[in-house]
Amino acid sequence: MKKLINSADTVLEESLDGLAAAHADILLLGADRKFVRRRSLKPGKVALISGGGSGHEPLHAGFVGHGMLDAACPGQVFTSPTPDQMIEAAEAVDTGAGVLFIVKNYEGDVMNFTMAAEMAGREVASVVTNDDVAVEKSTYTTGRRGVAGTLIVEKMVGAAAEKGMPLAALKTLGDDVNRRTRSMGVALLPCTVPAAGRPNFTLTDNEMEMGVGIHGEPGRRRVPLASADAIAADIVGAILDDLEPSKGSEVVLLVNGFGATPLIELYLMVNSAKRILDGAGITATRFLTGSYVTSLDMAGASITVSVLDDQSKELWDAPVHTAALRWRM
Amino acid sequence: MKKLINSADTVLEESLDGLAAAHADILLLGADRKFVRRRSLKPGKVALISGGGSGHEPLHAGFVGHGMLDAACPGQVFTSPTPDQMIEAAEAVDTGAGVLFIVKNYEGDVMNFTMAAEMAGREVASVVTNDDVAVEKSTYTTGRRGVAGTLIVEKMVGAAAEKGMPLAALKTLGDDVNRRTRSMGVALLPCTVPAAGRPNFTLTDNEMEMGVGIHGEPGRRRVPLASADAIAADIVGAILDDLEPSKGSEVVLLVNGFGATPLIELYLMVNSAKRILDGAGITATRFLTGSYVTSLDMAGASITVSVLDDQSKELWDAPVHTAALRWRM
Repeated sequence: MKKLINSADTVLEESLDGLAAAHADILLLGADRKFVRRRSLKPGKVALISGGGSGHEPLHAGFVGHGMLDAACPGQVFTSPTPDQMIEAAEAVDTGAGVLFIVKNYEGDVMNFTMAAEMAGREVASVVTNDDVAVEKSTYTTGRRGVAGTLIVEKMVGAAAEKGMPLAALKTLGDDVNRRTRSMGVALLPCTVPAAGRPNFTLTDNEMEMGVGIHGEPGRRRVPLASADAIAADIVGAILDDLEPSKGSEVVLLVNGFGATPLIELYLMVNSAKRILDGAGITATRFLTGSYVTSLDMAGASITVSVLDDQSKELWDAPVHTAALRWRM
Repeated sequence: MKKLINSADTVLEESLDGLAAAHADILLLGADRKFVRRRSLKPGKVALISGGGSGHEPLHAGFVGHGMLDAACPGQVFTSPTPDQMIEAAEAVDTGAGVLFIVKNYEGDVMNFTMAAEMAGREVASVVTNDDVAVEKSTYTTGRRGVAGTLIVEKMVGAAAEKGMPLAALKTLGDDVNRRTRSMGVALLPCTVPAAGRPNFTLTDNEMEMGVGIHGEPGRRRVPLASADAIAADIVGAILDDLEPSKGSEVVLLVNGFGATPLIELYLMVNSAKRILDGAGITATRFLTGSYVTSLDMAGASITVSVLDDQSKELWDAPVHTAALRWRM
């Protein structure tokens, strides 16, 4: 295992300390590093809280700040955070307008966020993201997995919350954005969890995993390496078959690296994916390209397509100021 | 070789097309993709042009836009762009106030930018960056290599140009920022140039290359894997020995991934590097963390320290709107 770390046991805490030091203008660490919170709260605004296992950086702590999340609860690598983390985060950032949990659909996360919602002693609603079209059930998951589309839900719901939308409407909006968002990924190389010290799955030199999950979970099939165009056709095809956008739809196109994939390849995938979308009469008018929802040092990428309407365009374009996404501020 | 590409021959052009499509609000591609230029020029502003071999994305094309570069000339992977690229870029973006070339110190780049300056038929000055303290000479280089500190020069000079600073003063500023900026890197895994199809150097499972260059050039020594703290102590120590900042200095701390290093590790390195700086009485008050000056799919990171004064703080903080860096806009 080759990693820039000191000890497998302290990766998360040292990385959180670095994040908090580098973004002290935006972020504060909660006691015992149970959560990362927005430094300046906005009274009367619904508090948005997400979280999940670590190893997907910058998700979620990198999305805490103006126009996105109020807090993120990091679990250990690929391990759900515990209910006390969400409860303490809610206590810290709820200014009285209630709390919305944004939860990726994994059994541990859903269970722990549900327990936290029940025990928090305050008004809580939840949006569960399940944008991964690859498989219907997977390791850790009943139903579809929540993957990179979660970032799109967090951005749009975050913008609406910033503008003062109340809790029930935010829940409706989040569910709606999730319904209009689909993703699928491919892995070229596996990732290594620090505590395990060895790759969490194996691929031969000529294989890739189509439909891989963000923890390296099996996808649809293991196939010989293919070209970027063939991969994009397969992924975008699966997304469009499932999403069934009407011709002429405008979409956000998110090409997301898994952690070890260089940007030169991600922009090449943008080109391939855009061509497929163009051919299907779908126009990407918003783009996000980079490693935003990662799987430690896994090589590969995912493609996410989210159908836009007037409201969601405005929400996507709205100001955001977080460690990992920043525009119009 | 496992890469998201169609053919080793078309990686650069397809990636540039993806970049231009994704950032059409900021960027335009020149004819035959000889350069990437800023879409909206500012009459009377000195034009800043950089460039170099590709494979270091987002450097340089990702830094074209308001507050940074006016154009970038991408060579093939790890290969200098040709003088005609810089000449055509200068023709496209010079609005009459002259052109400043920002060039990393590699023999091919320096030679080609020098030829272009002579042949451009317009007023041109050049800043050559050489921030890498690792070695005095290297493959492709006489004198020190220009590495991630180049981004700091481009940001600060870009902000000053945006404010209307004339050419001679920008040249002086660029040289001054370069003098106050030092970097050093470490590689854990090599990178693979698409046209070569195999890693460009080898490291055993227990080795790393201290002082590696951004093309995988040899560094100071090949040593057994060490902890993040030991690596940070070595790198920051080498930087401070060379830079000799006065106690109490404020600095920018840039922790830069080489392409295959996940953000969780980079923030951990921020924590380690900051501790070393704190111990030396140097305060990092500006941070940038991410994969900005990369080496294709090399694993590892570099640390850059740049000493701030009142002027450079203002220049660093000034608005920027590019594909890869965006703040206050």
